[in-house]
Formats: sequence, structure tokens, C-alpha cells
Amino acid sequence: MIHLYAFDTPNGRKISVALEEMGLAYDVTVVDIGQGEQFHEDFLRISPNNKIPAIVDDDGPQGPLSLFESGAILVYLAQKTGRFWPAGLAEQAEVLQWLMFQVGGFGPMPGQVHHFLGLPDEADRRYGLQRFGTETRRLYGVMDRHLGQSRWFARDLSIADFAILGWVWRHARHQVDLADFPAVARWYGELMARPGVQRGFAVPLRR
Amino acid sequence: MIHLYAFDTPNGRKISVALEEMGLAYDVTVVDIGQGEQFHEDFLRISPNNKIPAIVDDDGPQGPLSLFESGAILVYLAQKTGRFWPAGLAEQAEVLQWLMFQVGGFGPMPGQVHHFLGLPDEADRRYGLQRFGTETRRLYGVMDRHLGQSRWFARDLSIADFAILGWVWRHARHQVDLADFPAVARWYGELMARPGVQRGFAVPLRR
Repeated sequence: MIHLYAFDTPNGRKISVALEEMGLAYDVTVVDIGQGEQFHEDFLRISPNNKIPAIVDDDGPQGPLSLFESGAILVYLAQKTGRFWPAGLAEQAEVLQWLMFQVGGFGPMPGQVHHFLGLPDEADRRYGLQRFGTETRRLYGVMDRHLGQSRWFARDLSIADFAILGWVWRHARHQVDLADFPAVARWYGELMARPGVQRGFAVPLRR
Repeated sequence: MIHLYAFDTPNGRKISVALEEMGLAYDVTVVDIGQGEQFHEDFLRISPNNKIPAIVDDDGPQGPLSLFESGAILVYLAQKTGRFWPAGLAEQAEVLQWLMFQVGGFGPMPGQVHHFLGLPDEADRRYGLQRFGTETRRLYGVMDRHLGQSRWFARDLSIADFAILGWVWRHARHQVDLADFPAVARWYGELMARPGVQRGFAVPLRR
């Protein structure tokens, strides 16, 4: 059994979607970051950076395995099941480059848009919104060019798609209209029509 | 032969350090991001997100392999050589969680400090510097607690250490005094004393 510690955020949804698509057995502990539960001592032992998601896999390779960082969890689950993860080194590298594109860019950047949008002070908001809004739209442009030539981010459906999906799911929140990025919209529609993805988004990650 | 496309930045240095530590043969093409060379058409074909570093490995698993994103490059080089990369799935997951910690946090956050410090307008600087400066110091605290109990980020020296090193190397630029983080300082000193690391930092990445 895998124990998922998460909340209803893009990074949490990446993992609920992957678990459903991979058909793994798991239960969920909601860590309500609105209530600061990520700072509880119990959670810190699993996730030393106080962030969701984290997992504990009772059936790890050498006994129970505790893991934080959504990107690392995705790679672990993919390796464990062999699903949404190619066999060859070159193909794995192709998946990893798009996974890292999400973890290092298309996550931190729209995440800052969400933060700056929430600031009450216009002087505090202005520069950050401009900077991170522009960068977020640039990243959508990179994805749109790529998906104009490729059905998925790597040659087959992979954990890189699930990672990026978690954030595109929040496009309205970072004020991006998918009509401006038709190839992203096509990819998004195709993913969201999958029963496993729908189950992953339906998993309750709030109390 | 591996062809490295890079500039003298934390993400560029991660790869020059790893290549030296792994003893791989490579040459360097400087992509001067101060001159906007990352936007040239030639480079875009290798790195569709217009970022350094990128590599082309003439001796890839199925012929020449082109790869972007420093985190993906590190994993590829580690898998190719078996160096700074453990054999077991649990141990690999441990490396990957700290690699992702760097790619998703200890990189984007100090990188924003560097950006906001460079803004001429005090109103633009103020909020961003406070936000990203605080978050960067928090990340140093997470690393310091971990390195207080562990010599390296994972159980053995790994690509996660090289990834994080690239950014700690810039601690003065993001205005962090390593004296406040003694375990990070110990780890940094140990890494910087390694001949391979020193060679990696000596590789010319500017013209």
C-alpha cells in the first residue's frame, strides 16, 4: 500500500493522477496547507522541506520508502510499475527533460503568478505579476510549439505529461486562455478525457 | 564526444563539474546569454526553452542524443557512466528527491533574488527581494538541518550534490553568509576541495 500525503494543488494532483493511471493501491492523508499542517512535526519527518506531496510506500524495494518532491515521486512510481516510463536510456532522457522543464519552470513561474495575484497591495503586485505572467505565457508558447509537432511531450504518454497537466489544470487561475495555445488545448482535452485522469482529479484532497 | 552548450551560471557549472568528476570527454560551446545567444535558431533546435545548459552526445544509446534541462542532463550522464548514481531504486529515489529539491526550489528561488537585486526601481525590488530572500534562507535552513545529519544529500556523493553546489557557489550573490549555516559550509568546503570540482569551475564558460 502507498500512503499519499497531499492537498488539492497542482503538485498534489500530479500524483493522484499518476497513481490512478498506474492502477496502484493507495490511501490519502490530506495535509491542509491552508491550516499550516505541512509544518507539523510528523509531516516534517516525511518531508523535510515542509511541502506536499510526499509518499510512504510500505512495499518499497528494501522495505518502507518515504519520499518527497513530486518529480521524484513520479519517477519512482514509473520505475516501480514500468508504466508511462520508457525502457531505453535515450527515451528516459526525453521524458526527464520535459519533467524537469515542469519542475524547474512550469510550476515555480505560474505558482508565482498565483501568489502575486493574491497580494492586496498594488505596488507589491505590479512588477511580480508582469514578470511571472510574461514568463508563464512564454512557457505556454514553448509547450504549444512542441505539442504542435508531437502528440505527447515525449514520444509516448509519460509522467512528463502528468506533471505538466497538474499545472495546465490551473490555467484559468494564472489567467491563461487555452484558446491562445491550440496545441496545448488539444493535448489538455485528450488527457482530461482519460478515465484514469478523471479519477485522479476526483480523489478528495480536501477535507 | 559530448558537446556542452553553456554559460558561466549555476546551471552551467553543474554540468561542467559533473563532466569533470565523471571523467568524460567533452568540448564547450559558450552560449553568451548576456548577448541573447540563447535565442539563436541553431540553439533553439537543441534547447526549445532557450535555456542553457544543453548537450549533444555523439555517442548516445541510439546515436547522437540532444538534451536540455540541467537536471535531466545530470541524470543522463549519471546513468551513462554509473558514477555518482546508486544502483538500487530506493537509493536512486533518495538522490532524485534532493535533485528535484534543487531544480524546483533551490534554483528558481535564489535566481529570483539575483533578478530582483538587479532592478533599479526600489518599488519593484522591495516585495520580491523580501519574498525570495526569505524563501532562499529557509531553503538553506532545510539543507543545513539535513547536512547536520548526513555527509552528502543522499547516502553517497551524487549528482544531487553537484546540482546544489552550482547554486551554493553563488551564496554571496544572493546575500547568504555560510557562517549562518555551518553544516552547509562544511559540505561546501569538502566539495570545493575536490580536484574534479575545481576543474569543473575552472572550465572557461565565458569568452
